[in-house]
Amino acid sequence: MAVCFPDTQGDAPRIAIHLSRVGVTGVKKLLRLERGEKRPIILIPTFDAFVDLPSNQKGIHMSRSPEAISEVVDEVVSNSTIGVESICANIVKRMLEKHEYAARVEVNMTSDFMFTRESPVTNKESQEMAKLIANAVGIRDENGEITIRKSIGAEVVGMTVCPCAQESVREADRVKLLEFLDEETCAKVLDTVTFASHNQRGVGTILIEVPEHQNVEGEKIIEIIESSMSSPVCGLLKRPDENATVMNAHKNPVFVEDCVRNMVEKIIEEYSDLPDDTLITFRQVNHESIHRHNAFAEKVSTLGSLKEELNWEE
Amino acid sequence: MAVCFPDTQGDAPRIAIHLSRVGVTGVKKLLRLERGEKRPIILIPTFDAFVDLPSNQKGIHMSRSPEAISEVVDEVVSNSTIGVESICANIVKRMLEKHEYAARVEVNMTSDFMFTRESPVTNKESQEMAKLIANAVGIRDENGEITIRKSIGAEVVGMTVCPCAQESVREADRVKLLEFLDEETCAKVLDTVTFASHNQRGVGTILIEVPEHQNVEGEKIIEIIESSMSSPVCGLLKRPDENATVMNAHKNPVFVEDCVRNMVEKIIEEYSDLPDDTLITFRQVNHESIHRHNAFAEKVSTLGSLKEELNWEE
Amino acid sequence: MAVCFPDTQGDAPRIAIHLSRVGVTGVKKLLRLERGEKRPIILIPTFDAFVDLPSNQKGIHMSRSPEAISEVVDEVVSNSTIGVESICANIVKRMLEKHEYAARVEVNMTSDFMFTRESPVTNKESQEMAKLIANAVGIRDENGEITIRKSIGAEVVGMTVCPCAQESVREADRVKLLEFLDEETCAKVLDTVTFASHNQRGVGTILIEVPEHQNVEGEKIIEIIESSMSSPVCGLLKRPDENATVMNAHKNPVFVEDCVRNMVEKIIEEYSDLPDDTLITFRQVNHESIHRHNAFAEKVSTLGSLKEELNWEE
Amino acid sequence: MAVCFPDTQGDAPRIAIHLSRVGVTGVKKLLRLERGEKRPIILIPTFDAFVDLPSNQKGIHMSRSPEAISEVVDEVVSNSTIGVESICANIVKRMLEKHEYAARVEVNMTSDFMFTRESPVTNKESQEMAKLIANAVGIRDENGEITIRKSIGAEVVGMTVCPCAQESVREADRVKLLEFLDEETCAKVLDTVTFASHNQRGVGTILIEVPEHQNVEGEKIIEIIESSMSSPVCGLLKRPDENATVMNAHKNPVFVEDCVRNMVEKIIEEYSDLPDDTLITFRQVNHESIHRHNAFAEKVSTLGSLKEELNWEE
Repeated sequence: MAVCFPDTQGDAPRIAIHLSRVGVTGVKKLLRLERGEKRPIILIPTFDAFVDLPSNQKGIHMSRSPEAISEVVDEVVSNSTIGVESICANIVKRMLEKHEYAARVEVNMTSDFMFTRESPVTNKESQEMAKLIANAVGIRDENGEITIRKSIGAEVVGMTVCPCAQESVREADRVKLLEFLDEETCAKVLDTVTFASHNQRGVGTILIEVPEHQNVEGEKIIEIIESSMSSPVCGLLKRPDENATVMNAHKNPVFVEDCVRNMVEKIIEEYSDLPDDTLITFRQVNHESIHRHNAFAEKVSTLGSLKEELNWEE
Repeated sequence: MAVCFPDTQGDAPRIAIHLSRVGVTGVKKLLRLERGEKRPIILIPTFDAFVDLPSNQKGIHMSRSPEAISEVVDEVVSNSTIGVESICANIVKRMLEKHEYAARVEVNMTSDFMFTRESPVTNKESQEMAKLIANAVGIRDENGEITIRKSIGAEVVGMTVCPCAQESVREADRVKLLEFLDEETCAKVLDTVTFASHNQRGVGTILIEVPEHQNVEGEKIIEIIESSMSSPVCGLLKRPDENATVMNAHKNPVFVEDCVRNMVEKIIEEYSDLPDDTLITFRQVNHESIHRHNAFAEKVSTLGSLKEELNWEE
Repeated sequence: MAVCFPDTQGDAPRIAIHLSRVGVTGVKKLLRLERGEKRPIILIPTFDAFVDLPSNQKGIHMSRSPEAISEVVDEVVSNSTIGVESICANIVKRMLEKHEYAARVEVNMTSDFMFTRESPVTNKESQEMAKLIANAVGIRDENGEITIRKSIGAEVVGMTVCPCAQESVREADRVKLLEFLDEETCAKVLDTVTFASHNQRGVGTILIEVPEHQNVEGEKIIEIIESSMSSPVCGLLKRPDENATVMNAHKNPVFVEDCVRNMVEKIIEEYSDLPDDTLITFRQVNHESIHRHNAFAEKVSTLGSLKEELNWEE
Repeated sequence: MAVCFPDTQGDAPRIAIHLSRVGVTGVKKLLRLERGEKRPIILIPTFDAFVDLPSNQKGIHMSRSPEAISEVVDEVVSNSTIGVESICANIVKRMLEKHEYAARVEVNMTSDFMFTRESPVTNKESQEMAKLIANAVGIRDENGEITIRKSIGAEVVGMTVCPCAQESVREADRVKLLEFLDEETCAKVLDTVTFASHNQRGVGTILIEVPEHQNVEGEKIIEIIESSMSSPVCGLLKRPDENATVMNAHKNPVFVEDCVRNMVEKIIEEYSDLPDDTLITFRQVNHESIHRHNAFAEKVSTLGSLKEELNWEE
């Protein structure tokens, strides 16, 4: 005799409130994106996927969410142009179909992402790792119309040199140099020497909205984050590379705040054609070498507001 | 000759944008709160502390933030009534004084928190650990008026039993029992037996705003979270305790969604006198024993909206 | 004028002691292993790599270790048969060449590893994730002879059901059933019903040495770990799958100790032809649903000793 | 009718092998150690506790291990002289009593530990956090004789400056200075200037065995670890403090290997009276500011071997 399983989820709950987000977190997949002639992109993303739940239903049909993720991940393999933010958007669409009671669906993704860099002097090529992040939110209005907003971003490690500490070391050394140098020679020495500062690993993050038919490349975001710090870092540095990295970084000292400002400027320069309501998050966390704690700076804004703040004219 | 250190932070930045949040993360302190006659509360909190930064200033004076944390932590020791959310509020006030250019200050805190429980049958007392969380945000308007909103909450581990899987096990077993039992006896057996389901660790979280002169006890929040799952867990369970825990939990199966609903109901019952604009977050994450991924449910709402949704009448 | 960089590492240190292990940790790479006709294996491994350092040398040439990792990772791409433990062994060999002063080299690797499973009833295919682990240690004796020992293993999540709690629930229910059932009918009911217990995620780990010209498949290790718990877990379970998973798991309750014993038995059965001095580690950690803490069991032994303990006869 | 719970653990297992370690991990407690006149020490330790299990017994009596931890933690409160390694040893003794079938018991502990430091110039006092670690292993021989070995240690964050990169910056700058300075003036400038290097957070670790009736203070271990790096770090640094920290650190550049050597020397100097068979682990991990990966060095040795390597004479 066949067992007829009950649909406990479909019951009405005793406490009848609408829930903001119900779903799964930590769903890991392997994702291979063909790129035509180029090397395929390989990711091992972790997904979170949520729907809202009306007050008259006890539970969501939980298995439909990992199912939607699986289906989309299986289908994208052969699509040579899709971006990770569009994969999130596709999962959102699939979930809106499967969870017919949901009015809001949200999908977040984060993955290791491999890119290559050359060391600055000996040009050794090295695989480097960043975090690629993406998300999409779909809203279904009362007429069944669906609006989806999606974002892509990255989290990248670089090197930051503190300008304040470097200034103070320079000043302390200047006083000592003036004990045996004249003002003019001293000035030349100060211009020549690479003064110490504290420096450390910094982690820069950008997350930027992408309109339906435009494109923002993850690689470009990574370049912008890297170039907003004192120096990129590299896994493979021979001695002349290490020297160049340290000297270049100390010629370009930046506060945690400056990293955010640099990212803002570069994003506007690169993506000034995106809509004014494009939401962007910029964040920098420096693992201060002189403290146990971290330094942090953040800017959350729309592209339009950023342009306004900076009196940007194209 | 004395060295005169430059105030690099005070300079105007090249890219003149206002920054949303600048500060420190991961500042760890030891905090001992006297409680009059009662055992003192001991915490090892980790603080994050942020200020906003006007567009005409290159950097915040970073050291003033850990300084404000240190000063407040040192001062509260002898205060027998202060709550952790008020400690965050006091740090916010101190930071608003020290960072005279800031219009918004935010302080977040999380800490291990020890409480005691008795095992259900043999009444063995056991130290149990939860996370205590708190935050405060201060806004300084154009007239220098300061408004502070603060919240307290907790994150507690408990046990959740899936009602859907239990129903399906019961149904499958019912079919087999009917092969040798009559309907009436079968019904009595079904009422008597503790049917299996999948069960697992769940983590419940509540964060609730607290008005300036009212009080929400961390211990009470922990009790509400624990009692919203199928069963509390305990570090020390002799065999009869383990049996009681498992049997009680299986008499009280809950979906991840139910845990959130239960928390909502208990919070309204306990704190119906708080203002209608009190913002509350409820969250449950179950580490599903049948999956590698987690189940998640969340409700973010004001107390007023919750009462309205539930037609609450006092 | 060219700068001549000093070889600070080559200097003699003031405190002349031999160091056990010097190297790099956390080196992440993307690794693609072709498998002939089969789907290629894709990994994002994290490597640690160490050499010992004689007492007369101030530092190792640090960049040579990530360089060795890079070179080997680049070369293996087209090799259709190599295992991850052999990749570690090849890195060890390369490092012994590059660090001519080292007598001992150690390389450890851990990576997400994707495999597929079908759900037990509806046969939905699902990508599942485990950790693949490998290591190799090379010793260079005084005559320059090199001996390398290498291991492969995995860390896999499954479901464990406690036999003791299930017995006690059954016993408690038996007493209640006897109030209205005769002994014989009661016995039949007890045989039929799926009694509750606490169950939870368990994480099983095996690490096994592999002789130079033999082969141990990561997939086989994963199967052994999974089948040593009460049930495998799966990312995609429709309602009948969930029912089957829960019911099967409760028919196969295991202590944390039993998981280790089951792994031992299966490894001996599968790999009885490996040498007697093959070192094997078995470990199980259960995230107890009734406690905040975990249960743990471990066996570290050689294959020969295991066979002896169990009076194994082939 | 009373339920009689079965002792499933006492059964004989089907696969009769001895298990190396069975127990609990992640047991968190609050621990308050009075120190007579001095400020009490407050810890929130996490314990792991293991016993071995004979081949003829299915399971350990799991609840006895957290019970032993609880009892010892409750009892030590009023003992003004006990060290954390002795607490671990006491738990081992209690577990040997409770698990009468065990021949080997192991207890590990790790905890946040608060100590205070003054900033180097303005003498601001600041709470600082390190990890305190301890363990104990008890062996019961065939005659029931018990031998216990115990260890204490710490894991401390500090700042490390790379000597090699600093040398290369100095050399590169020297070449440029010689374009307008004579050799003698250049030499004086080189002696005066604080040249840049890469610097970063380093984490030093020492774990040292302690004989039954001798004492090793956690605070002393922390001091030794801190002073083996280029500079200690501090949570609260005003501008002159930051300058002093950076300048002092750059006067004392150390390789990851040097940190280990420095710790070795200081430990021998401080604890030369400990027995020759005292086992000690020294470890340093630097979070390289120029790489995504870390640098690592380790020495594991007995005190006697260290003295021999260094021809130590007291």
